[in-house]
Amino acid sequence: MDAVQVMKQEVGRAAAAMVESNTIVGLGTGSTTAYAIQFIGDRLAAGEIENIVGIPTSFQAEVLSKQYGIPLTSLDAVDHIDLAIDGADEVDPNKNLIKGGGAAHTREKVVDALANKFVVVVDSGKMVDVLGSTFLLPVEVIPMAIAPVMRQLEALGGKPELRMGVKKAGPVVTDEGNLVVDLKFEAIKDPAALEIAINNIPGVLENGLFVGVADTILVGEIIDGEPKVRTIN
Amino acid sequence: MDAVQVMKQEVGRAAAAMVESNTIVGLGTGSTTAYAIQFIGDRLAAGEIENIVGIPTSFQAEVLSKQYGIPLTSLDAVDHIDLAIDGADEVDPNKNLIKGGGAAHTREKVVDALANKFVVVVDSGKMVDVLGSTFLLPVEVIPMAIAPVMRQLEALGGKPELRMGVKKAGPVVTDEGNLVVDLKFEAIKDPAALEIAINNIPGVLENGLFVGVADTILVGEIIDGEPKVRTIN
Repeated sequence: MDAVQVMKQEVGRAAAAMVESNTIVGLGTGSTTAYAIQFIGDRLAAGEIENIVGIPTSFQAEVLSKQYGIPLTSLDAVDHIDLAIDGADEVDPNKNLIKGGGAAHTREKVVDALANKFVVVVDSGKMVDVLGSTFLLPVEVIPMAIAPVMRQLEALGGKPELRMGVKKAGPVVTDEGNLVVDLKFEAIKDPAALEIAINNIPGVLENGLFVGVADTILVGEIIDGEPKVRTIN
Repeated sequence: MDAVQVMKQEVGRAAAAMVESNTIVGLGTGSTTAYAIQFIGDRLAAGEIENIVGIPTSFQAEVLSKQYGIPLTSLDAVDHIDLAIDGADEVDPNKNLIKGGGAAHTREKVVDALANKFVVVVDSGKMVDVLGSTFLLPVEVIPMAIAPVMRQLEALGGKPELRMGVKKAGPVVTDEGNLVVDLKFEAIKDPAALEIAINNIPGVLENGLFVGVADTILVGEIIDGEPKVRTIN
C-alpha cells in the first residue's frame, strides 16, 4: 500500500475512533470515508462499541456499510444525528468545504448539516487558502433546466461544464437522477453568499459549498515518511 | 358553463391574444392556463399567428399543447423565452406569487423566471393583501430528506404537512419524482427572504414563492354578471 493510502487509512481510523456506543452516525462518501466505515465495522465486530445505527449519504456508503456490518436506517426513522463522518475536496482555513467530487453532495449536505458534530476526513492535499483554487464547484441540477442554469451560473462568474460519465455514455447522473455542472472559479471570495445565490437559481437542487457546517477536520499528513493525523477544531 | 369557468376562459383568451408570431412561449400549468393553451392553438389553426414554439412547464402543459397543435421544444434548444403564461394560487399587491397547487412549481419557476415577459392568469379570488393568507406554501423536497426538512421548515415558522395523493395511495409525487410539503403560515411578511431561506435548506429543490418574477397580472372578475379581465402592469 502506498503512503497516500496508508495516510487515508489512518485518518479513517482516527474518525472511526470517535464513534461512541448508542449513537446515530452519518456515513459519508469517498475513499477516505470508506476506511472510516471499514474501521467502524471492525470496532462493532470486536465489541469495542455497540448499538450503532448509520445513515448513509450515497449508494456507495450504503453498500460499504452493509459489507462491514453496520446496521443502517433512514432519516425518517431518527430525529437527530450524533456524529457525521465525511470527506471533502477542498477545506479552507475557516473549515468551509467544497464537496461533490463523487456527485453525492446533496445527500451529504442533508446528513452532514443535521449532525450534532460533523467530522471531515481529508489528506493534506485538500487544504487550501481559498476555496475554488484547485477544485471545481459541483452543482446538482434537474435535467430539464440544465441549459438555462448553466447560463445563470456563468453570469455568477463561474465557467460551467457538464460533468460527463466515465464507464457511462453521456453525462453523469446522480443518485437522485439529476445532472452535475462543475464550475471553475479563479477563487471563491464569499462562499456563504455564493452558496445561497446558486441555491436560489430555479432548477438547482444543491451546490457543493458547505459553509459553517464542519466542526472538526482530521488531516492526514506524511511527516518524515510516517503518516500523521492532525486535528483542527 | 358556470360564471367562474367563463371568467377563466376570458382570462385565458386575453393571455393568448398577447402571443405574437415568431416567438418562444412558456406554457404554464393549471385550469386557467389550460384555456390559454387552447386559445393559442386556435389562433395558430386560424392563421392569426405563426411560427410559435412552446416550452411546457409540466406533463399537463405538454399533453394540452399537443392536443391543441402547439409545436413544443425544450430549454436545451432555445436561449431565451419571449413570453410565459402561467397561473398562480395567490397574488399580492407587489405581483409576488404563491404557486404550486399543481405540484409543478419547480418547472414553472425555471420557465417563468427565464421569460422576458411573464403574464399571470388568475381569477379575482387569488388576489390577497398578504401572501400565505389563504393558500399553503408548497415546497418540493427530495424523498430521503423529507423528515429533517419538515422539521427545519417548522423552525422557520410554518406548519408543515406532507401533501397526500388523491387517486394515488401515499404522498403526491412530482413530475421530478420528489415530494411536496405544504406550509401553513399566518402571513408571509418577507417573501423574498423566506424564498431564499427555504431554498437553502439541504434537500429542498424549490418552493412556491415567486418574488419579482411576474410582469403582468390578468385578473378575471365578474362584474354585474359579466366576465371582465383587469390588467395589472
